[in-house]
Amino acid sequence: MTEEFEAKRRDILEGASEVFVRRGFAAGTTKEIAAEVDLSQPAIYHYVGSKADLLREIALHVDREMSAALDAGLASSRDPEEQLRGVIHEFTAAVVRDRRAFAVFFQELHSLEPNVRDKIAADERDFVAKVGRLITALQKRGRMPAGPPVVLAEAVLSMPSWMYHWYRPGGKLGAKDIADIYCRLIGLET
Amino acid sequence: MTEEFEAKRRDILEGASEVFVRRGFAAGTTKEIAAEVDLSQPAIYHYVGSKADLLREIALHVDREMSAALDAGLASSRDPEEQLRGVIHEFTAAVVRDRRAFAVFFQELHSLEPNVRDKIAADERDFVAKVGRLITALQKRGRMPAGPPVVLAEAVLSMPSWMYHWYRPGGKLGAKDIADIYCRLIGLET
Repeated sequence: MTEEFEAKRRDILEGASEVFVRRGFAAGTTKEIAAEVDLSQPAIYHYVGSKADLLREIALHVDREMSAALDAGLASSRDPEEQLRGVIHEFTAAVVRDRRAFAVFFQELHSLEPNVRDKIAADERDFVAKVGRLITALQKRGRMPAGPPVVLAEAVLSMPSWMYHWYRPGGKLGAKDIADIYCRLIGLET
Repeated sequence: MTEEFEAKRRDILEGASEVFVRRGFAAGTTKEIAAEVDLSQPAIYHYVGSKADLLREIALHVDREMSAALDAGLASSRDPEEQLRGVIHEFTAAVVRDRRAFAVFFQELHSLEPNVRDKIAADERDFVAKVGRLITALQKRGRMPAGPPVVLAEAVLSMPSWMYHWYRPGGKLGAKDIADIYCRLIGLET
């Protein structure tokens, strides 16, 4: 695919996310998406495909972004505290970059085809389990409170996950500032 | 309304939440809801009303539960640390009690009538602002890290809010145990 083709696809997926967040997947139409990105409906089909294809591409994009955030965070250090800080920073940056796509991802899981939904659920379990292992390592050092590591992992990951609901761009704080606040709140030095 | 009428309404709203979580509001039908609660479609209309009425009642129920959790937490003490702990405990208990209704509430905001959505958004701003005031009081005592109180409030409230996504009943931990973990994670004594 050429760069221009890729850029068009990105624009269309961004516009589709905007429409799906505002109206829901079931109510949103490719006509509205075409209007949102100033293209024709046939162009939408040409560059991406049907409404279901749009949703699948948005969901798989977010799934890849989350896996990339996890991998980058884990690769950032060999120290579990720095790794957890890294995961929080990478995940927060991903949500800030793509908040509409994340909102669609979390709000429309039920609208996805079962095989895509299953893949996403498996990737999420893997994400939580890996963060749980960091928590276990930090508990051994007395840097995390007692409790099941998976519940603590869900609690920590709540903060970037839930941003899709409340975060709006244009404020004074960037992704890095917000992630630093998350880290300080749970006692990780920044 | 008689107690029996109220009990039927609660059953129907629980069944409607189940269907809306599984299928989404737009795709779910009153026929499926009727099957879920073993009643006829006319009975659904009699006890609650149309599909839009069902969604509105679910959303307003969750809105009231959230306000009640906030009020109970604030009323539990005059000490801001105990008040914040109280809000976290009450909110977590509400999500555990009604997790399907909370999932519908957060996933279907776009499907609500504008006046209901506006009321819910206003109540949420009030919730975050009041928790932000507790955070400010705790920052003055050195019990919370620096940062805009509203962002810290969103971060703290992420933990019970996001439970609708991951929590499933039947585990070893009850609402109180989970809320204690949230409190310890952010440095509140339990």
